[in-house]
Amino acid sequence: MGLSAGQQSIDEIDFKAQLSREAAETDRVMGELLHSRSHIPDRLKEAMGYMLLSPGKRIRAAMVRWVCRMLSGHIGRDGQIAAAAVEMVHTYSLIHDDLPAMDNDDLRRGQPSCHKQFNEATAILAGDALLTLAFEALAAETTNPQTAVQMIRMLARAAGPEGMIAGQMADLEGEKTNGTLEQLRSIHISKTGRMFAAAAGLGAIAGGAGEDQIDLLADFGLKIGLVFQIADDLLDILASSEQLGKTAGKDSRQGKLTYPSLVGVQRARQIAEDLTAEALEAIAPFGPQADILRRLAVELLKRKK
Amino acid sequence: MGLSAGQQSIDEIDFKAQLSREAAETDRVMGELLHSRSHIPDRLKEAMGYMLLSPGKRIRAAMVRWVCRMLSGHIGRDGQIAAAAVEMVHTYSLIHDDLPAMDNDDLRRGQPSCHKQFNEATAILAGDALLTLAFEALAAETTNPQTAVQMIRMLARAAGPEGMIAGQMADLEGEKTNGTLEQLRSIHISKTGRMFAAAAGLGAIAGGAGEDQIDLLADFGLKIGLVFQIADDLLDILASSEQLGKTAGKDSRQGKLTYPSLVGVQRARQIAEDLTAEALEAIAPFGPQADILRRLAVELLKRKK
Repeated sequence: MGLSAGQQSIDEIDFKAQLSREAAETDRVMGELLHSRSHIPDRLKEAMGYMLLSPGKRIRAAMVRWVCRMLSGHIGRDGQIAAAAVEMVHTYSLIHDDLPAMDNDDLRRGQPSCHKQFNEATAILAGDALLTLAFEALAAETTNPQTAVQMIRMLARAAGPEGMIAGQMADLEGEKTNGTLEQLRSIHISKTGRMFAAAAGLGAIAGGAGEDQIDLLADFGLKIGLVFQIADDLLDILASSEQLGKTAGKDSRQGKLTYPSLVGVQRARQIAEDLTAEALEAIAPFGPQADILRRLAVELLKRKK
Repeated sequence: MGLSAGQQSIDEIDFKAQLSREAAETDRVMGELLHSRSHIPDRLKEAMGYMLLSPGKRIRAAMVRWVCRMLSGHIGRDGQIAAAAVEMVHTYSLIHDDLPAMDNDDLRRGQPSCHKQFNEATAILAGDALLTLAFEALAAETTNPQTAVQMIRMLARAAGPEGMIAGQMADLEGEKTNGTLEQLRSIHISKTGRMFAAAAGLGAIAGGAGEDQIDLLADFGLKIGLVFQIADDLLDILASSEQLGKTAGKDSRQGKLTYPSLVGVQRARQIAEDLTAEALEAIAPFGPQADILRRLAVELLKRKK
């Protein structure tokens, strides 16, 4: 069991410091991308920036950056843009998920969700705009067409109708029905796992990895994405709204299919631990350079919000 | 005044026959793209295909294809995918535009709009999915990375927060206010002109054009896009819902800024004629090979639905 591996060289305090440094860098790049597009109407730009730059951990972006740095020793323009693009796509999905017709959530990251702060039409358009800008940035700002196309293809597949959107759709349809563990795993892979896999994958591409390394890192991303989602399900029933910065207990009230509702809290925790061990196994070949990723896996397993 | 140029070699009946042949080809490619993505959940795929493959003229896709064929003599894989991608982005924008929080339209292409046929959440996701799939297809299915990146950049800019979405936002904000002709032109450029420009531009890229040719063709596209939008404004007040296949008279009831509301019907028609003349001027260098584009410009000017 390799759960303690990453804890030796990087402790929790150091991890948090590194995570905030990466988040600050990601915010800088995202702010720069947004503000350099000078023809975005003010109100639209405000709505895009409101959610994009609101306080958040930027875990997906940090994964892109850590993987890129692990492989190439630094984060060049491709890694910066890739991290920003992944975070923009994630943010668009939150904005649309919060809409009244979707999860109908008034609270996000401890503040009013986008449609509450602005209005529904603006939130729909701000989401659309962030999604489009992510692809525009990858096409326009990365250093060579091969890299750009590889990243766009991977991100679009992870975010699209066979990936994240399939997960959102399954989530809607799965409400108030009984499912199997296999169905639930497949929903979680689509909804969360594939975007985490894409984050690691884009970082690997930016870091100049070959196919084999990309596959290992994407597998790591997928597994810790599942852990992240199981932890989310657990927090939804165990934590308060104040801790989460979003409405707690919604999933269970809406009768959503979740790990704790399907297999109970203890078994859900065990599945998360097993997945974490598998994730660590996938990155074993990368040696001590991958310690920050190991620490990330452990932190996601035990996260409180 | 070159308004009669394209009418000599291609008459209206021939134009309509060519337009339907291109639409059938575009539908075939879009259907193939949709169905080859075998992991799209059934209900989501149904909603995507419902609007994507519903009867429509596919004018933007035809522009891509005609420009490509004019320049290279045929429509290869790049031209096919580009036409499909432009049409997918256009369709996503219709689905989101029709949502209750946006234009709240129950009727589209003579049938219930997507959120009426399915539900709001499904319509939001189907729109998101078509947008994402358009970029995925360009990245995955075109023949070389340079072409793919050039197309993705152009399409994302035209569709994004400095393009079409800026136009949708301005449209929302412009409701019930008095605007100037300059403001209105700028809204129409964003809302419609830039996607028409991108259609011609992507066709030019697929056809192997250089920068100068791309610019001329994009200018042609922009101008006839404006004509298309002015005709739309005119039809909204002059035609019936049955003719249009969508709700007529909505713009004026919602107090939207339109050409006829701002300058009257006669002056609006004159502006459309002047723009058509400018568009024809832009493609003068392409000789008789551009006759189908000339005929398109004339047909958009006098369209009845």
